[in-house]
Amino acid sequence: MKKDKLLMTPGPTNVPYGVREAMSRPMIHHRTDDFGLYFSCLNKNLKKVFQTDNPVLTLASSGTGGMEASIVNCFSPGDKVLVANTGVFGDRFVKIATAYGLDVVTMDIPWGKGVNGKDIEEILDSEEGEDVKGVLVTHNETSTGVTNDIQSIGEVLKERDCLFIIDAISSLGGMDVKTDEWGIDIVVAGSQKALMLPPGLAFVSVSDKAWKAIEKSTFPKFYFDFLAYKRSLEKNTTPYTPAVSLVIAASQSLNMIVEEGLDNIFARHKNLGEACRKAIKSIGLELFAQEDMASDLITSIKAPEGIDIEKVRKILNLKYDIMIAGGQQHLKGKIIRIGHMGYVDGFDLIKTLSALERALLEVGYKLELGTSLTAAQNILKY
Amino acid sequence: MKKDKLLMTPGPTNVPYGVREAMSRPMIHHRTDDFGLYFSCLNKNLKKVFQTDNPVLTLASSGTGGMEASIVNCFSPGDKVLVANTGVFGDRFVKIATAYGLDVVTMDIPWGKGVNGKDIEEILDSEEGEDVKGVLVTHNETSTGVTNDIQSIGEVLKERDCLFIIDAISSLGGMDVKTDEWGIDIVVAGSQKALMLPPGLAFVSVSDKAWKAIEKSTFPKFYFDFLAYKRSLEKNTTPYTPAVSLVIAASQSLNMIVEEGLDNIFARHKNLGEACRKAIKSIGLELFAQEDMASDLITSIKAPEGIDIEKVRKILNLKYDIMIAGGQQHLKGKIIRIGHMGYVDGFDLIKTLSALERALLEVGYKLELGTSLTAAQNILKY
Repeated sequence: MKKDKLLMTPGPTNVPYGVREAMSRPMIHHRTDDFGLYFSCLNKNLKKVFQTDNPVLTLASSGTGGMEASIVNCFSPGDKVLVANTGVFGDRFVKIATAYGLDVVTMDIPWGKGVNGKDIEEILDSEEGEDVKGVLVTHNETSTGVTNDIQSIGEVLKERDCLFIIDAISSLGGMDVKTDEWGIDIVVAGSQKALMLPPGLAFVSVSDKAWKAIEKSTFPKFYFDFLAYKRSLEKNTTPYTPAVSLVIAASQSLNMIVEEGLDNIFARHKNLGEACRKAIKSIGLELFAQEDMASDLITSIKAPEGIDIEKVRKILNLKYDIMIAGGQQHLKGKIIRIGHMGYVDGFDLIKTLSALERALLEVGYKLELGTSLTAAQNILKY
Repeated sequence: MKKDKLLMTPGPTNVPYGVREAMSRPMIHHRTDDFGLYFSCLNKNLKKVFQTDNPVLTLASSGTGGMEASIVNCFSPGDKVLVANTGVFGDRFVKIATAYGLDVVTMDIPWGKGVNGKDIEEILDSEEGEDVKGVLVTHNETSTGVTNDIQSIGEVLKERDCLFIIDAISSLGGMDVKTDEWGIDIVVAGSQKALMLPPGLAFVSVSDKAWKAIEKSTFPKFYFDFLAYKRSLEKNTTPYTPAVSLVIAASQSLNMIVEEGLDNIFARHKNLGEACRKAIKSIGLELFAQEDMASDLITSIKAPEGIDIEKVRKILNLKYDIMIAGGQQHLKGKIIRIGHMGYVDGFDLIKTLSALERALLEVGYKLELGTSLTAAQNILKY
């Protein structure tokens, strides 16, 4: 029997039926009250989920478009920025900033480790850190399974004349991001992660401090010009045709998120993360990420000596219809990654562990069947 | 009774149920063979619909993103371009090119008129036209209801060292665009017009000549970097997460288009255009667009003296659940526009005319009921 794929990946993630059904409704025009109702409801809920009083912009683009937009709107050629490079997505900030001719100071963190406020402060207080106009950090680095300590970095940056920009593409809606309280100027989120939507939308919150910087930016821009989105948002619309079906889907999924309640959602993900890590360790596997900074949305696991971990992944996908992720770049074949973000509960995790145990046995790894299930079962509350 | 909206607008347009259903399927991951099948099928059909042997890139953005991408990939700061400004969307080319510091020569065509090869040749042969590196033309200018003569412009440009870029956002898939034969270097299409899809995707074909220019372009870019899309396309994927549900929908709608056959589709739209114009004139209304360049995808109609045409539009929308478009910018209240592109047949047009007659009567316009229906009925073949 071929079942619908269970996506235990760091995006795209599973999309609830109610959200998919909303996308399948007859098309409506975007310059109408009907669309306006969806859009204003979405915008109201985006503020709640971003925990901000500032406007949240909706772009028809992938998360990478949102990252680039943040850079071209906030800075000007030659501006110095500090990037905490903790993996593939930290590196993407480096690549975009470099492509635009920014003066990029890169903190090259070993993959699997995270950064906190002290690490950032050290650089900012050094000669290298002089005149840094922006600090760019990935919140939840899915390539390694690490969550950087955004709150402590926010505290360090509050007193400084420097913008704080975070890639919360995979974290927003799954873990706590107190945008205003933590002093984050730009938060970029993507639709296809914890927000339980298909890919195709990026959401960006912009602080007052960031708006002031944006007005001074000299980079040319048009499609990604935040000021155009701000002006349109005041009239409850977008400057260019919005991705109507995705916006309607988003209004639906954000409703579900607000209904479940942010605290409940964060607790669910925390519980899933803990259960997954315990379960993985119970069968003798090692975690890849520094454990005190391990992500609650994705668990990275080292391939055991002599085990073809890519084959394990293939068995999960082709035999059991469960998608998990492999390692990226130099980690290919060295780790696997189990996503547990968005529309995922404990039973999905149990199912995944059940398949993982069977697949590991199949490739010759020794374990006692049920061990990881029992470990998870003793922790799971959701 | 409230019926599903019939979208007789220049985008978003009606989306067939089969395409909407495809979007509502359980999410799949984009780095899989399952997705690869959809994507390669889409790419094969895009080449057919673009009538090109060159690769067609798929961007997660609105059509405006595709227009901007074409400019930042093909040119460098200070390059001279010629834009045929025939309405809102010609003007958008001017605005983007100006934002990027290009030297923009603008042909300001009176709204409602079109351009052909001779008009372009005249400018290129004048002093103003020296060293023009690109000519940018809107194919189907939806704001005025005019179709510019792309074929004759292509003939003029074939012998010149200059790129030919067209915005075919609303026309592609509805009227003939012989990309290779007519020598068009960049064709930008949008998903939400004749291609029968929701908004959120732009498609861009790129000629060999354009690729050579792209390699020399010095504009910074990342998300819209065509070279990255080209490299990924060779591996049947995209550089950043694609809008999975929209790509699956597109593979479905392009299948429908190829199955109907381009010639049949062009004939259908030609017939709808002719029937609509004849019907409109039969009740004494005047066309806004120059008739020998009137679009077969959208009909623009002057508001009769003393008639509140915005009220007519409102009646169609709220009483009869049919959306038509009004005038943009200085044409607001002066014209209405009936779109007949994409998933539209003669019966949809008949229904629209039936509602239009009733609404016109309601606001005090004199007509004999059934006149425009009979006029259309005598022409319609689809």
